[in-house]
This record gives sequence, C-alpha cells and structure tokens, in this order.
Amino acid sequence: MNQSSATASGWLLPETSLNEATEHYRKNETLMALCNGYLSLRGSFEEETIQLGHAGTYMNGFYEFHPLHYGEKFPGYPDNSQVMINLPDPKSVILTINGQTFSLDQGKVLHFERQLDIQTATLTRSVIWEAPNGNQVQIDSVRFVSATQKHLAGMQYQVKALNFSGAITLESLIALNRTNISRADDPRIGVTFDDAIWRIHNVYHAEQVLQVSGKTSKSQLEFRCTVSSVFSGAPHTIEFTQTDNKASLIAKATLQQGETLTLHKYMCYDRMDMDNPVSFALAMQQQGFNTLLAEHQAWWANAWAQMDIQIEGAQPLQQAIRFNMFHLTQSVGKDGQTNISAKGMTGEGYEGHYFWDTEIYMIPFFLYTQPEIAKQLLMFRYNTLEKARSRARELGHNKGVLYPWRTINGDECSAYYPAGTAQYHINADIAYAIQLYYNVTQDREFMENYGLEMLLELSNLWMVMGVFDPEKDNAFCIQEVTGPDEYTCLVNNNFYTNSMVKHQIGFAVKCLDQNFKLNANTQALVAQFDKKLAEQIVDSIYLPYSERLQIHMQDDAFLSRPVWDLANTPRNKFPLLMHYHPLTLYRHQVCKQADVVLAELLLSDQFSLEQKRRDFDYYAKITTHDSSLSTCIYGILACELGDMEQSYNYYIKTARTDLNDFHHNAKDGIHAANMAGSWMGVVYGFAGMRLNHGVLSFAPQLPKEWTAFSFPIHIQNKKLTVRIQADQTTYTLEQGQDLVINHRGKPVTLTLNQSVQLA
Amino acid sequence: MNQSSATASGWLLPETSLNEATEHYRKNETLMALCNGYLSLRGSFEEETIQLGHAGTYMNGFYEFHPLHYGEKFPGYPDNSQVMINLPDPKSVILTINGQTFSLDQGKVLHFERQLDIQTATLTRSVIWEAPNGNQVQIDSVRFVSATQKHLAGMQYQVKALNFSGAITLESLIALNRTNISRADDPRIGVTFDDAIWRIHNVYHAEQVLQVSGKTSKSQLEFRCTVSSVFSGAPHTIEFTQTDNKASLIAKATLQQGETLTLHKYMCYDRMDMDNPVSFALAMQQQGFNTLLAEHQAWWANAWAQMDIQIEGAQPLQQAIRFNMFHLTQSVGKDGQTNISAKGMTGEGYEGHYFWDTEIYMIPFFLYTQPEIAKQLLMFRYNTLEKARSRARELGHNKGVLYPWRTINGDECSAYYPAGTAQYHINADIAYAIQLYYNVTQDREFMENYGLEMLLELSNLWMVMGVFDPEKDNAFCIQEVTGPDEYTCLVNNNFYTNSMVKHQIGFAVKCLDQNFKLNANTQALVAQFDKKLAEQIVDSIYLPYSERLQIHMQDDAFLSRPVWDLANTPRNKFPLLMHYHPLTLYRHQVCKQADVVLAELLLSDQFSLEQKRRDFDYYAKITTHDSSLSTCIYGILACELGDMEQSYNYYIKTARTDLNDFHHNAKDGIHAANMAGSWMGVVYGFAGMRLNHGVLSFAPQLPKEWTAFSFPIHIQNKKLTVRIQADQTTYTLEQGQDLVINHRGKPVTLTLNQSVQLA
Repeated sequence: MNQSSATASGWLLPETSLNEATEHYRKNETLMALCNGYLSLRGSFEEETIQLGHAGTYMNGFYEFHPLHYGEKFPGYPDNSQVMINLPDPKSVILTINGQTFSLDQGKVLHFERQLDIQTATLTRSVIWEAPNGNQVQIDSVRFVSATQKHLAGMQYQVKALNFSGAITLESLIALNRTNISRADDPRIGVTFDDAIWRIHNVYHAEQVLQVSGKTSKSQLEFRCTVSSVFSGAPHTIEFTQTDNKASLIAKATLQQGETLTLHKYMCYDRMDMDNPVSFALAMQQQGFNTLLAEHQAWWANAWAQMDIQIEGAQPLQQAIRFNMFHLTQSVGKDGQTNISAKGMTGEGYEGHYFWDTEIYMIPFFLYTQPEIAKQLLMFRYNTLEKARSRARELGHNKGVLYPWRTINGDECSAYYPAGTAQYHINADIAYAIQLYYNVTQDREFMENYGLEMLLELSNLWMVMGVFDPEKDNAFCIQEVTGPDEYTCLVNNNFYTNSMVKHQIGFAVKCLDQNFKLNANTQALVAQFDKKLAEQIVDSIYLPYSERLQIHMQDDAFLSRPVWDLANTPRNKFPLLMHYHPLTLYRHQVCKQADVVLAELLLSDQFSLEQKRRDFDYYAKITTHDSSLSTCIYGILACELGDMEQSYNYYIKTARTDLNDFHHNAKDGIHAANMAGSWMGVVYGFAGMRLNHGVLSFAPQLPKEWTAFSFPIHIQNKKLTVRIQADQTTYTLEQGQDLVINHRGKPVTLTLNQSVQLA
Repeated sequence: MNQSSATASGWLLPETSLNEATEHYRKNETLMALCNGYLSLRGSFEEETIQLGHAGTYMNGFYEFHPLHYGEKFPGYPDNSQVMINLPDPKSVILTINGQTFSLDQGKVLHFERQLDIQTATLTRSVIWEAPNGNQVQIDSVRFVSATQKHLAGMQYQVKALNFSGAITLESLIALNRTNISRADDPRIGVTFDDAIWRIHNVYHAEQVLQVSGKTSKSQLEFRCTVSSVFSGAPHTIEFTQTDNKASLIAKATLQQGETLTLHKYMCYDRMDMDNPVSFALAMQQQGFNTLLAEHQAWWANAWAQMDIQIEGAQPLQQAIRFNMFHLTQSVGKDGQTNISAKGMTGEGYEGHYFWDTEIYMIPFFLYTQPEIAKQLLMFRYNTLEKARSRARELGHNKGVLYPWRTINGDECSAYYPAGTAQYHINADIAYAIQLYYNVTQDREFMENYGLEMLLELSNLWMVMGVFDPEKDNAFCIQEVTGPDEYTCLVNNNFYTNSMVKHQIGFAVKCLDQNFKLNANTQALVAQFDKKLAEQIVDSIYLPYSERLQIHMQDDAFLSRPVWDLANTPRNKFPLLMHYHPLTLYRHQVCKQADVVLAELLLSDQFSLEQKRRDFDYYAKITTHDSSLSTCIYGILACELGDMEQSYNYYIKTARTDLNDFHHNAKDGIHAANMAGSWMGVVYGFAGMRLNHGVLSFAPQLPKEWTAFSFPIHIQNKKLTVRIQADQTTYTLEQGQDLVINHRGKPVTLTLNQSVQLA
C-alpha cells in the first residue's frame, strides 16, 4: 500500500510540520507512543538536544511507592500509592555536524515529516536540517517496540550528508536524567517525589553494548536497560563515555557528500526476568534490524486480521477506530501479572493505575478479538486475590474479597475514598467480566481453576456487607457506596451497583450446578457458600425506582437533589470537578458519566426498551460526560433507542477523543477505556450486538454518513465477520463449524465460509 | 484558708510526688497550665535542665500556616491549616550549686510538692534537692499569668542554702529551642512543620531586661517576649549571654547557710500591640511581684463570686467542677478577636482550633456567669463574617455565610470535609448562641449592631442551600451535610441540623418585628430577606421520624443501617475512629456523640418527655461517647427523664474527664467543651434549669451522693443564687430588682435579697 492510500484508509497518523509548543509536542508524544504491554517509549524525538515535551520510558507494572499525605488520616487509608515510573531513556542520540549540534536553537529545519504507521506499529521521521554553517543533512529514523520480543525495541537512525563532506559525531546514549512529571493541583495527574525515584547502581560497557542497572528507592524494584549500538555506512571510531546523566558510545566519522552514517539500536529492558540480556541484545543484533522489524510487522498483520474494523465513507473515523485498537493492543499486559492502565502505556496520567476500565470497557474488546488477552487480564485479578482478601478485612468485612479501586500491584492506591475505595462496584465489574469471558469462550478450565473461586469470594463480600433493610420491607440493600458516577458519592442503593450485584450473585448460584471439576480450595468455598442467602439476595435486592417519574433512580436519594443548571454553567467550568467543591457536586442531580444507563447496556435484556428510553432521556440531560467513560455508553444506548443522529454525535466524540484532544489532556496519556468504548460503539452500537444466553444477536443500523462497515468477532473458538451495508448485512463464519446467531430477532445458522446476506 | 481545708473544699490540685514518666508529666503540664485568654504557660518545670514533657508557651489566636496535603485535592479544599504555635519560653531558669546543675540526672530529690491553686490561679512548687556533693537547697517557686494585665506573667523563684555555704549560679533565660509537637498518625493531634515555625530577628538586652522579637515563617505574624529578671536576697553579679538556644542573664552569688537568693521574672508577651513592652516590664517590676499577684488574686476572687458552684458531700466533684470553670475562664479570649479553642490554651491538640464547641457548649457557661465574655465570643464570629461570606461563595452558595468548621483566623482549616466543612450545623449553632445571648441578656444594642446581621446572613445560607424536595411532599430538606455525630457523615436531613435550622429561621423571622434600630447595612439585609420563604421553611422543614419505632431518626437513612455490635467490640478498639475505616463506621448505626439527644436538650420545649425518653433509650444504646462532647448531654437528659443513677454516672465521666484522664489524651490539652458540659450537668441537669420565653425554670433533683449544691446565675443584669438541698431549694436574688422564675412548673417572683425556699 502506498502512502496516500494508507492515509486514505486510515492507517497513518502523520505530522507534517514541526510545532515546538510543548503542549502540542507532549500530546503527540502520547499519540505516537509505541509499546508492547511490557515496554513503552513515548513518541519523543531521538535527539537528547531536542526534548520539547516529556520523554517517557515505562515498563508495565513497574512502579515506585509514593507516600500519600492526608490532612487527617484514618484507619484503612493506604500509606502509599504506586506510581508507574519513567526510566532511563534508551533511544537517545546526539548528532553533531562539523562541531554543530543538531538542535532547534540553531540552524534551520528545511523539511520535517513524521508519521505513526498504525498498521505496522512503527514511527518514522524524516528531517532535513541546515546547520548555521550551511551544511545540510537528511536524518531518517524509524523505530518499533517489538510485538514478538517483549523486552525489545529497535531503532534505525540515518544521517546523510547532502551538500557537504565533513565530520559527523553521532552519540548513542542511554539518558539517565529522566524522572516523572510532577503536578500539584489536578487530582487526575501526577505526584511529586521527594526523593530520587530510582538510582543507577551499575553501568556496564563492552564493545557496542551499554547496560545500566538500577533500583527504585522505596519499592526496591530492579531494572536493567541493555543497548547494543551498531554503526555502519562510513568508517568511524567509537569511544565510551559516562556521566551522571548518561552512558554513551560516541561514533566519529567523516562523511563524503551523499554518504550516510547509520545507527541501529537494539534496546532491551528487563526487570531481572532475563538470564542474560547482553547475550540477548547481541543475538537480536545478529538477527538484524530488518528481520526483527519484519517479525514485528507480521505479528501486527495477524493482529489486524483478528480485529480490524473497516469503515467506508468516513476516513477520520476509520483512522480513529484503528488508532484506538492499535493503542489498546499495544498497551495491554499479556502475562497475567500486569494489566492495562487507564492511560495505556502512553503517559503518566492517573499514575499508571489499573481501574474498572479494564473489566467493563476493555475486556469486551479483547474478548471478542483476542480472547487470550482477556483471560490474562482476569488472571491479573486472580493473581492479586489474596491482596483483595486482606483489603476486605481492612474494611471490616469478615468474608469475601474487595478489589482495589486503583492499583498497580494489587494494593489499593486511592487517596480519596469517596471516589475510590467506596466504589465497591469494582467487585461486580470483575464478576461481570468473568461471566462474559465464560459465556464468550466457554472456557470451563478457567472457571474451574480460577473463575469460580474469584466469583464466590467476590460474592461473599456483598453477602456480608449488604443488609436486609427493615425500612424497605427487608429488601437487600447496599449502603454507603459510590457508583460509576463520581459526581454523587457515598450513596445508598446505587442502581448500577445493585443491578450488577444481582447479576453477579445470580451467576454464582448458576455456576454451582455446572459440574465444574474444582480443586479442593474452591470445593471448600462452594461448601461454605450460603446458597440460600444468595438466592434470597437475588430475589430481594433493591433497585431504586421512581413511580412518580417512572425512571430508575441512580440511588435512593438521587431525585431529592436539585437539578444542576447545566445550561447556565460557563464552558470554562468544565470538567466540574476541577471547579466545584465535592459537596456542591454531590448535592445536585448532575452526573459525570453513565451510571443507570451503563447498567442498562450491560444488563440489556433485563430492561424494556421503553424503560431504557425514559431513563436515557432523563439522565442524558444531567450528564456532563466529564469522564471519558461516558459518551461511548450514551452513544450505544441512543443507537438502541433508534436515535442515530444523537448516537453518531456521541460516537464522534468517543472515537476521536485523543486524536482531537477533546479532553485537553492527551499529553498525559490516551484514554484507553474510551478507546475500547469506540470499539463497543461500532459493535454494540451500530451493529447492535448483544450476547444473550451465549447467543450473539445483531440489530444493525448504518450511520447515514457511512457506506458500509465490517468487523470480525471471535466467539467459542469461532471467527465471524460481519459487514453492514445500507440494505443488507453479510455474516461470514471464517473459522469454526456452525454458529447460530440472531439477526433482528430471528435465529440464523452460519456454516464455515458460507456468507449469509440478510436485510 | 489553710491548705487542708482548701483541699477539702476542692480548691487545690496537688502533686505530691515526682513522677518522671513523660506521659504523666505531660498530662500535669496540661492540667497545671496557667493562662488568661491571651498568654499561656503550660505547667512545666521552670528549670531548663528538667524538661520531662512539652513546655508550651502560647498566645491565643497566634498561629502559623501549615500546608495541608491531600492525596487528591479538589476545589474549595483549604490550602493551609492555621496552627497555634509554641513560642519562646520566658519562664526558664538554670540553677547551679557549687558547679553542680540541678537536674534529675544527678543528686537526690529529698522533698517535692507542687500544687495548682484553682482559687487564686497560681502554681507553686517546693523542692529540696541534695547535690551529689551533699549540698542541700530548698527551691520554692510560684507563678501566675495575670488576669488583669493580659500581656503579663509573673514568677518568683527562691533558692535557699540549707546545709552549706557556697556558690550559686542562677540563670534566668528565654528559651528559644521550642517548637510544636509533631505527631503523624492520630487525626486529632499534631502537624509536622517542614520549616522553622518562627525565627528570632532581634535580641535586645539592657540591664535586667531581655527581649526577643520574632516572626512566623509563613503567616508572618510578629511577637515579642520581654522579660525583666530581678535578683535579690544576696550579693550577686549579673552577666548577659546569648546563643541560638537562649538569651540569658546569669546571676552569680555566694550564699551563706540559711540564706536565700530570689529571682522575680516579669514576663511580658505581645504581638506588637503594645507601645513599649520594655517600659511596661519595668513598670510591672516597679509595682512588684506581690502587688501584681494580689491584683490577680482579687480578680479571681471576684470571678469565683460570679460563678462558683458549691457541691457538698462529694469532694472529687467539687474539685472537678471548680477545676473545669477555672480552665474555661482562664482560657477564653476576651477581646472579640480571639475565641476559646477545643483544648483551651493548655496544649496543641486540634491545633488550637475553635469549633462549634464554643457556641453550643461553652457560651452557656459564660453567658450565665460572665455575660460580657459570651458577647466577645459572638463578636469573634462577627469579626470573621466576611470570611464566612467568602467561604459560602467557595462552596457554591450565592447568598449567606458559611462559618468554618475549625479555624483560628476565620478561614476554614478542616482537611477532611465529611467531618469538617460538611458540618454546616456550625451556622445554626452560632445562630442558636445569638438567640440565647439575646434571651438571657436582652442586649438589644448587640442585636441591632451585630446579632441580626449575622442571623440574617446565617439564615440566607440555609435558604439557598436547602431544597423543597418533591420526593418528600415538598418538605424543606437539607442534604449532604454532617450532623454533630461524626460516625455518620454526608447524610440527608440530619435531625439535629434541621431542628436547629427551624429554630434559627423562626427566630430570624421574629426579630424582624422587634423594632430594632438598625444600621443601613442591616436594613438592606432585612429588605432583601425573603420572609415568606423563611416562614415556608419553618412550616415545612423535614424532621425525620420513624413511625415504626416512634423515634426521631438521626437522618433519612439512619435506621436502614445495621446496628454496630458494641457489646462485642473489644475495649482496645475505642475510640472507633482510630481503628475502623470511615466507610465501616458510616455504614452502621453507631454514634460518636449526642446528636438527636442534643437537639432535644437545646430545643427542650419542643419535644414531649415521652418522645425524649424513646429517643434517649434508642440512641444511648448505640452511642460510644468517643467524643468528649457527649456524656454531659446524655447525663442532662437522663436527669430530665428521672434516671438519676444513670445521670450521675454520666456526670462523673464528664466532670472528671481530664482530672482522671478518661480519654488518655489530657497530655495534649484539656477538653474545654466537656468542662463546660460539666457546668451544664449541674445547672441544666441536676437543677433542671431551662430558659423558656425568657423565663428561667427549675426542676431540681439532688444526687443522693450529695447533701447540697448551689450556684449563681446571671440573667438580664440580675444575679440569682440557687441552693438545692434534699428537701428544699432556696432562691435568692442577689442583684437586680424583681425576677420571675418558674419552680417545678409554678411561677415564683423573687425580690432583692429575699430568699425563697421551696420544696
């Protein structure tokens, strides 16, 4: 595919001019970050002398403790947050032409172009720079973070003497002067460390290999950064140098006009999980840059075959949906020890924490496109089950587990419990994802070894923390929690939470009859599980409903609050949480995000369309979408309710959130859950896909702006593609034998490689 | 009065042996603190070489900013707390006998006695110390903080050579090595300053006068400590010396056996509010120690005449009630610029902050005994009205004022808003105190110039923040606030708050018809006051009531919560707030303190006795009294309900809280509101005094442990004494002409100096 057709098909994110504004550059560093779920390099320039923004190098799950301070501290408040930290930067170079260092402070940039190739997950840049003395060089770079070798990133950096012959110095370095962004007054970003986050305790150099080893100050985690630098294309000498700020190999060459000096960097990061990273780096070098890149690109080609959504007739949205799936796929931890943070691996917003975003927003995308990844995300929760058990005890519950609202290592990091620990729905969200995973994959082995154990413990928590309320005819009630909407905190009977708990416990009860082959531990849990109580809860759980307005109430007292006057709130007062005291927000009917409406999507078959319509109409008017988790859900519901115009508007806001920087904070990282929401917007929204009793149903609606769209779905080891046009929908079973689906309410049986076209 | 009869009558707090344990010593430093509402000296030893606890020197209202840190910070969170700070210590000395310095590390203490004389507000100590070389000295000291000269403290320190003749060195110093206590994990105490709290910028010395001048680092408040040291009794030389830690005058003398060297320190503290503190100190010295002491004692003699409660038959309680009134009277700010902090001026607990404790607990005591002080406390609120107006705007209210939950200078200091800023009832508490003040004093001039203005603005706040709730038949509701009970936060329709607001707004409406002569400013407020809305609120405000249990509910959802199992909570888990996460507490029916029951005391005539009984019985079972503001209220209600045994138990816990250190934290300061509660326990409790429509009523009950008790009451410029015995009550009008009171439901007219005895 040539470049222009690639652009047209939405595979490229080009940057055609050099904008030195820090905010702009930092935003593009985020958008152009490359990672593989283990290692991440933000999209900053290679040159140490041109750092306009925030060069970030991260390992997923690699964190430092940051002490949490409280004006008043109470029992059960976490002592520390965990913060994803910025590590030494392995991609850095310094280029000097006849003694003149390439920077933007001097000389002239005659040509600049950079592009992220979404399809191949590579970042390329081409620059022509004229030094103050008139020497012109062309600098071409390309880099990737390997999708097949998780420890590896590769980079090629070429310098060509265009109009002169002369001395070139190219320094390949590991930059050590890196730290995290500090930010004081925005609760959404940043921490300030008192002390060095990490210290280097060893620098190793042998021929073309540099290695720095370091350790964090408080969490005492160790890392190694091993880089092999290979220079070619012109005769050169190499020397090693080291300061507090860097470890370098400096190549000196003399280029004849038209000659090129090339540097290949084989950059390997590990957290002491490799036997011999130096051997590994040398082995990678042996394979060579092009081979490694080809292997990487082949992985991505296959990934796209499993997940690509094609949108015809709306290039900006085609680009956006691919961009979003690209970031999700490259950011997600794939080893069961790490997860996917709210900002992917692209920035330091939310301190790199994992939230419910994973289970409710991102797992559906992975589950239907790359189910093994969805399993690993659930395994992360399984692997932190013991910490969730301790946390439940800390919160006074003598049974069950309580997962942290935000975490990296499994311990709670939320410093503001009303919009943190109080969001107990995280438990129901994880249970929901377990059920969804099982329904989509039919993976009994997972349920037998991990899923049911989690599910029972997740349910035990509700069973000891909820109460049969004598003030409500002994209905089962859940009190003093916060639902998804963080503009109303510490409420009784949050509709979302209670609905999800009903669903979760109902599923747990059903699982008891599945004849799972359980290990002794889970058998004991089953024996202790109070099935009768569970059934009572399912029967009697309280779902707040207003007879007066015929709508579900977000919580018991929601309709008692006055409605916030959104129409007369100045634009510069959004997001509200940055401008109003929590008490002011909590006293009003105003929502940060979907709450009732989200429950009605996730538990779609339990509510009538008329009920959904009334609830949607009510809550849409009072929802600010100040959270990026909101517009995608509203868009899907609007679609279900037949309001395609509203749905499409929501969809644009969702799909292009980061590309257009709608929230003005892409510089701190992408909005991963929202990106997954843009996938749901196509599949759950326009295609109307739902899963009921293990059967996929579709109710397609084509946005009038599009001519067609298509996507693959993986279910029960089968692969289905769906192509939706104005007048027909084509279903093709590409893998697996028969699959029964439901199209507009009617069952359809698909057989392998036979397309079925339906109106 | 000789010493033993003084002890018997409860005027003395003796310390007969030297207990070096820090905790014990720190507790006694609190109990034996001397102050005058402006300046305070904790009861530490004079010797710089014997500092076992925490020597504190404070000025009321003199604070440093302390930055508040939050894991997540939101708009309207205070940036800083204000902290009452520990200043240079002017009373310090160092005594050396033949080269051997008096300390507890060497030599022997042959005799030790110390006592606080509550009646005269003096602290005396007598010690015989034998140096390692066998030299014995008798050391006698006495000190006071002048009740008549607010800048002044006086001290006499005498050393007598008992069994030797030899060299004595007596160093009189201002100790500069003082700072605040830092404490990390108890939300009730302490802060840690990063920087020096204050710095000395000038040290002045001329003859016997030393002066240090300093300034706080952040609040930039200036202070001066001026000390004149006069040595007498033996020939001596004097030299001046200065280090970073102290400024000193060192007297060297040779004592013959039986001779005495005497030091008088005239210690003057000001915050640049004196013209010439050096002249002042010299003038004080001119008057002489005994004259100043006599003047001080005369002031106290008069104060006791206005307030003394005599209890016959229970010496520990006689001592306790006097001890409590003593601390209240000496701690209270009397200038309208300062107030009385939760710990008086005796320690650094709660950072020296002023709370609602003033209005609801302490003002009644002052109002009925020293009404001018009550007025000055209200003037403090008037003088910070503008800050309360700004705070209301910060919290999103476009009218009215919102007073800070905790403060020194009028700005909010609470770092945990659910049990801080959310306690909007502070507004109603201040309004209640204004009404009480007016009813007791009939001070129209106060209402015209200050009271009504405050009252209208306090009421305007409720009128814009409350709502007519369509879910509750359009009753007026107050949402998302915290009542007095801090174990249930952020609730809707707290019973206490709503009851008090009803009372407040009702009073505001009545005031509009009082023909007050108002200034233009208040006239404008009256013109803008929405009287119709106010009347609607009074008519329709929602008071949560359970028909099922026939009790008032503490808030809308209170009875939905499960009851905390107090019986099975281990003793070492109290106070609960130190052991359980707030969510755990908030989810249960468990009270830190009186809430519904407090409303039923303050608004006594609005509830039937049967209703009070049901509410008392219900809430008493679930109240931990973890707050020191609770037992006094329960004791009074128990009395009203006729349960004298329960009442008396509550009373003992109340009256001797600090003397017996029931809360294990007297070391950080006394519990001032509780002390005032012990006054209420006698007057509102056992004497059954209430004020209805300006008429005092009594329903006396004598505890069976007592033979009699008596107390004075000031009302409308009249002074009444009440003496209650088993079979009769004697009322005597000691000042003023006629006074109509009510005894056991029947009106009685009293005339000057005519005692009336009633059964």
